[in-house]
Amino acid sequence: MHTIDAIKSRRSIRKFEDMPVDNKYINTILDAGRWAPSGLNNQPWRFIVIQDRDTIKQLSTCTHYNDVVEGAPLLIAVYLFHEVLYNYVKDIQSIGASIENMLLACHELGLGSVWLGEILNQDERVNSILETPESFELMAVVAIGHPAETSTSERKEMNELVYNEKFGTRWLEYNRDEEY
Amino acid sequence: MHTIDAIKSRRSIRKFEDMPVDNKYINTILDAGRWAPSGLNNQPWRFIVIQDRDTIKQLSTCTHYNDVVEGAPLLIAVYLFHEVLYNYVKDIQSIGASIENMLLACHELGLGSVWLGEILNQDERVNSILETPESFELMAVVAIGHPAETSTSERKEMNELVYNEKFGTRWLEYNRDEEY
Repeated sequence: MHTIDAIKSRRSIRKFEDMPVDNKYINTILDAGRWAPSGLNNQPWRFIVIQDRDTIKQLSTCTHYNDVVEGAPLLIAVYLFHEVLYNYVKDIQSIGASIENMLLACHELGLGSVWLGEILNQDERVNSILETPESFELMAVVAIGHPAETSTSERKEMNELVYNEKFGTRWLEYNRDEEY
Repeated sequence: MHTIDAIKSRRSIRKFEDMPVDNKYINTILDAGRWAPSGLNNQPWRFIVIQDRDTIKQLSTCTHYNDVVEGAPLLIAVYLFHEVLYNYVKDIQSIGASIENMLLACHELGLGSVWLGEILNQDERVNSILETPESFELMAVVAIGHPAETSTSERKEMNELVYNEKFGTRWLEYNRDEEY
């Protein structure tokens, strides 16, 4: 799948088939995550791969989206590792880049995935279940599996989001005839 | 270019040819940026496209990497729009996902790019030059152009980054024979 096509066609998938994800695929997803850019290349991301049914069941009680978590054969918990912190805002951005890489890799592999953020409201319980040290700050949980649904969502038009040269002048006012 | 190949082969490019980036390409890059995922699909990113030589020259004085900025035919300033804020940490993560999408799109288009974070140290000067309102928080500047260098950088091994089921047990101890 071409990169830009993957970026534009990826959507969150919240229902999964009852079958495991092959370890080779898991390695490919993690590899995509680790190749994200980061400030001073500090690579502040750490990952915990979860496939154990009991652990998944426990984690499902930490979020309102318990059915999504419980129905997933694979979770990847994404942590910010404070011992290599460079700049909190920039490190969090790079965690987002790493997660996006994993979502895109899933999509190319024919897997579905969803980035779960609401679970951060119960990060202490998640950390307790996963036995993480103080230096690990929970950033997200990604639920992954073979897709059992399709999904649509839209985005704001470019004209709402982009300015030309300075704030105030819309980009597309100058470029309305250029396809994108 | 296949998605996972693009993710693994993209590197920061800091030297550019002295030629502009076609507007069609700019639209494609911005389009990739807007298709990132965000919490509650709030799409907190806003972009300012900068090609004016005087503005680029002014912005180059806001960072130690002045030669990178001054040598770029195209800058995209990325902002967090506080009026649609959902959760500061998650919104910053999604900004990172949006930036990564743009870097990957550049790479597929044969363009080079570099994500500049150090310029945040002088965000007030940048905001003044770009005339942004209080509700806009500078997140990064991406410098883009036709590449005039190649670049290498490495990443930590999976074994340093990934745990299996819980913190403490390394993922690859269970999967050392699986290629990734």
